[in-house]
Amino acid sequence: MKENTARPAVLPVAPTRGRLRPLGLDEVRITGGFWARRRHTNETATLGHCLDWMERAGWTGNFRAAAEGRVHRDRRGREFADSELYKLLEAMAWQAGTGAGTTFDAETAALTEAIASAQEPDGYLNTAFGRPGQQPRYSDLPWGHELYCYGHLIQAGIAQARTRGEGELTKVALRAADHVCATFGPGGVEAVCGHPQIETALVELARLTGERRYLDQAALFVDRRGHGTLPDGEFGRVYHQDDVPVREAAVLRGHAVRALYLAAGAVDVAVETGDDALLAAVVRQWGTTVARRTYLTGGMGAHHRDESFGDDFVLPPDRAYAETCAGVASVMLSWRLLLATGEPRYADLAERTLFNVVATSPAEDGRSFFYANTLHRRHRGAPPDPDAMSPRAESGLRAPWFAVSCCPTNVARTLAQLPAHVATADDRGIQLHQYADAEIATTLTGGHGVALRVRTDYPSGGSVVVRVDRSPDHPWTLSLRVPAWAADATTWLTEPDGGRRAVAPGTAEITRDFRPGDEIRLELPVRARWIRADPRVDAARGTVAVQRGPLVYCAESVDLPDGHDVDAIRVDPTAEPEDAPGGPGGAGGAVVVAGDITAHGTQRDGAWPYRPLDAPAAPRAADRGGIVLVPYHSWANRGPSTMRVWLPTTNP
Amino acid sequence: MKENTARPAVLPVAPTRGRLRPLGLDEVRITGGFWARRRHTNETATLGHCLDWMERAGWTGNFRAAAEGRVHRDRRGREFADSELYKLLEAMAWQAGTGAGTTFDAETAALTEAIASAQEPDGYLNTAFGRPGQQPRYSDLPWGHELYCYGHLIQAGIAQARTRGEGELTKVALRAADHVCATFGPGGVEAVCGHPQIETALVELARLTGERRYLDQAALFVDRRGHGTLPDGEFGRVYHQDDVPVREAAVLRGHAVRALYLAAGAVDVAVETGDDALLAAVVRQWGTTVARRTYLTGGMGAHHRDESFGDDFVLPPDRAYAETCAGVASVMLSWRLLLATGEPRYADLAERTLFNVVATSPAEDGRSFFYANTLHRRHRGAPPDPDAMSPRAESGLRAPWFAVSCCPTNVARTLAQLPAHVATADDRGIQLHQYADAEIATTLTGGHGVALRVRTDYPSGGSVVVRVDRSPDHPWTLSLRVPAWAADATTWLTEPDGGRRAVAPGTAEITRDFRPGDEIRLELPVRARWIRADPRVDAARGTVAVQRGPLVYCAESVDLPDGHDVDAIRVDPTAEPEDAPGGPGGAGGAVVVAGDITAHGTQRDGAWPYRPLDAPAAPRAADRGGIVLVPYHSWANRGPSTMRVWLPTTNP
Repeated sequence: MKENTARPAVLPVAPTRGRLRPLGLDEVRITGGFWARRRHTNETATLGHCLDWMERAGWTGNFRAAAEGRVHRDRRGREFADSELYKLLEAMAWQAGTGAGTTFDAETAALTEAIASAQEPDGYLNTAFGRPGQQPRYSDLPWGHELYCYGHLIQAGIAQARTRGEGELTKVALRAADHVCATFGPGGVEAVCGHPQIETALVELARLTGERRYLDQAALFVDRRGHGTLPDGEFGRVYHQDDVPVREAAVLRGHAVRALYLAAGAVDVAVETGDDALLAAVVRQWGTTVARRTYLTGGMGAHHRDESFGDDFVLPPDRAYAETCAGVASVMLSWRLLLATGEPRYADLAERTLFNVVATSPAEDGRSFFYANTLHRRHRGAPPDPDAMSPRAESGLRAPWFAVSCCPTNVARTLAQLPAHVATADDRGIQLHQYADAEIATTLTGGHGVALRVRTDYPSGGSVVVRVDRSPDHPWTLSLRVPAWAADATTWLTEPDGGRRAVAPGTAEITRDFRPGDEIRLELPVRARWIRADPRVDAARGTVAVQRGPLVYCAESVDLPDGHDVDAIRVDPTAEPEDAPGGPGGAGGAVVVAGDITAHGTQRDGAWPYRPLDAPAAPRAADRGGIVLVPYHSWANRGPSTMRVWLPTTNP
Repeated sequence: MKENTARPAVLPVAPTRGRLRPLGLDEVRITGGFWARRRHTNETATLGHCLDWMERAGWTGNFRAAAEGRVHRDRRGREFADSELYKLLEAMAWQAGTGAGTTFDAETAALTEAIASAQEPDGYLNTAFGRPGQQPRYSDLPWGHELYCYGHLIQAGIAQARTRGEGELTKVALRAADHVCATFGPGGVEAVCGHPQIETALVELARLTGERRYLDQAALFVDRRGHGTLPDGEFGRVYHQDDVPVREAAVLRGHAVRALYLAAGAVDVAVETGDDALLAAVVRQWGTTVARRTYLTGGMGAHHRDESFGDDFVLPPDRAYAETCAGVASVMLSWRLLLATGEPRYADLAERTLFNVVATSPAEDGRSFFYANTLHRRHRGAPPDPDAMSPRAESGLRAPWFAVSCCPTNVARTLAQLPAHVATADDRGIQLHQYADAEIATTLTGGHGVALRVRTDYPSGGSVVVRVDRSPDHPWTLSLRVPAWAADATTWLTEPDGGRRAVAPGTAEITRDFRPGDEIRLELPVRARWIRADPRVDAARGTVAVQRGPLVYCAESVDLPDGHDVDAIRVDPTAEPEDAPGGPGGAGGAVVVAGDITAHGTQRDGAWPYRPLDAPAAPRAADRGGIVLVPYHSWANRGPSTMRVWLPTTNP
């Protein structure tokens, strides 16, 4: 691994070592297209929506109540409600970046004042514990989320320091971090939090401050886990990843968000301490998890009961939990592994997850959200009341807010950081990982400035044009990720001199003495294709799905003839899917596949649904025709509907 | 509906009206075979095991602690722990019947003394609420289970009254029931319990005592539900069936045990009050539920998260919850509907559920139990500690006891009552519903005695011989259920005169002037057959299962060549399954099917598991041969194993 030269930059994740060097939000701007629209909605709608709901739900008021000594009586929300303010503060900081657009300075100051007023003299800060009339501090480590909340507070403090400069929020975070080290450090309480999250935060704080003790504390938390310090409960120690030490585990397991946050923290610790064995352990777990415990959308976590990964290949579309926050956490993990190793497979999964989980959660207007991201919705739900907090993680349509509302602010902070995922640098040059209209300007090793402009119709189309605006006057290397989904098709790369060559999935490189005005063109084979699942994914047997570029598609009942549900669809995968420009579905547009839509007819309705194989099946009256599919991320924006990604075939 | 003449009989369920008249435990004895063995284990192992654990877990002690004023400090177990003692008392009463074998009189007296000591002067009785230092009475109706506990107490009191005569336990139950009527009756608290159960109990108490007010109270509880008196929570009002009034609902939904207990109570109310509309509503719900929300085993409840029914056709084998108690409750409901309507389809479902859910829960030794009854186990679990209470509803092997231990005592009370399910009477004669070696002696309308002896190898074989030992000297009708599983095959009935005729699924009748010594022979087509699921059961697409008579079969890894798991199996349903006498699997014996067992090979292991349809599949090296299947109820009695009921076919 290479050491990254310490330098000030607006970096959400700033490892001091690693194969690739991240670029800051001051170095990459997303200027148009899919993600620019999403980030605009985030800035103009989602952040304010979250702020309003936080106040309305009383979660902001909890801090004021704590400062005024009445929190034992007046506190509202779940144990971890504090963290939502912190995540919102983090999101506002990254979204504003260095403050060219909306700064959110006033909102940040007001929230920070409330938060700071509730911090106790020794740095302890949590509105659910520790004051008269409340449970004592750290009396419920499995479920209390105190350290988890600090983690988000610290991330918010770091975001402030890196975007607007160290401020009051940073100071509150530092006091909390020092309290954590004093309480849980060597010789202190030998425990871990039920919900990992503080690990990444402490490592990042060490990166910000240069203080080793924060890193040591994070390493201690990573190493302590898996030794059964948390009690065995209804969901087992596996729920908290306390069943097996991180470096011994073979696969991610238990509560998906917890598992992914922990793995991200372990990568951070491994990178900063040079612990190659720990890094290798997470790399191995990532590989097995992706191969066996991941939905086509990139979604992770198959169980509703405990929000956990299931056994290998237990990936039921209709009971997919695929929590939005697990998507966020998966992107966090993949991003860290990409920086550490440079391997494009991590950017592949991040792309899939960003387009099909993170982008799916918020509604088009940015004011309601999916918590769980099912791949098959069997009944039309009732639209949630836009003025009511949903008591449930599931809903037929997106809900404006949840009793457990981790997802909206997590989406917000991810969209806010997104420009950082576009490109990286190393000694040889620049690497492009995610394709969006963007402007990139940074300094290569040796102090040479480079500036690039990216223009693309991705993911609707596959054309990516990179124009060099500024370049060192010596050869360097531009690397472009060729996504794994482009396998079995041809990706063309055209160099500035017009030379055109086929490039394979992985990384395509051009090394030359680039001149301003040079254009490099990548033509990705974005076309709709049938996808099948490994036969061990029992729940997808006898079905196919459509993917077009990185986008997964789905059938939605609003596109079917009147009264039909998606479960009446049978598709014919011997005919190729075709693009349907101008159809529904927003970015990426619609696709049409051959098949039939019919009333259920293979069996008499209302009878015992299991019959001898040799009993005759009822004939099936089928109207053959084209079936419209839309990008999965766009579903449920047109009123209550049924939906499915995996479609049974006409000839099962 | 006919009125049943009031008469003393050892009857678990004694409707005063209905198409059929139940026979008491003093009128039917199971003398040998599958269920006699299960009942023997229940008597000699399970009941004592439950008694020991109840003491050990401290749940018996709760009553003593309440009497001694220290329960606020010393209480152990969940809110509903009291009910386990009641269910055990009920089980002991029915198992002992009129007391020919083990009476359990001493155990009953000791438990009753503890219980009675904790009853408050106004009849209130619950160790979790109402005393100084505890939550107030009825302060948590959604989750507190106070009325649920009374229901089981009342059932225990009734069982005592009907088997050994009214005793102290009956008196405690009557005081509690009077307290319920006083508190929740007209003009009282307008509320329902979060967990239905008291409805059946109050109706049964009205039947025992002739007191109308208990029936009225039950009817009030049934009618009150579905109007949103319980709060909307994480699982929604549907969880408590408080979303839609009972008589308006189209299907059973929400928490499966709650839904089934409520439906059973609604049938009881409908029968006693002559409310045909209410009965018709439950009949309709039963039909839809059986057609769309029931596993091949009869198991109900697909969701682990909230132990609930899922949407129509959401029946994932690997995430089947199919709680043992839901099986018990389903048998209770079907039994009541059978008595009310006389329709054999209710006995069909009861048979399926008894053999494949109720009989599956207890281990062969009767000392450990499945709580959830999955249809696909993907990894070998570790055997639960025989000395530890399991904190979880799931386990790879059966657990001796659970933190929530509703299932063991529910199995025990069901096995104890089982003889009552064998036969009924009406004005025309006797109906046989469940086939077991049995002796039946009762009095037909008009006071004429009849006695029958049943000899059968069922369910291993399909031969049922009914010998008439005593008969009125005029014609009467013997009815025999021909199970629905016998469709598409031939069932033969041989009359005493040797006449042999084919009979169809439903009811076969013989009306004649029977003479002592007459024999009637039913030959049911018990042979292994491939079963397929309705294509709308997405999770079973491309798979088949084997059923042999009423028994569902499964593949278990202990019967596969070394190291292979059940997920390596592909079967060839073009070859008929064959019996394998002498094979593993206990009653019903093994079956052999054609297929192959192979290492996973259709796709490179460890890679992204979704690929374009046109990408070549890796060749699959398959060893073709016979695969042994065993009765589902017998699985997990030979150490940790993987198991599956639905088997993928070689040509998907």
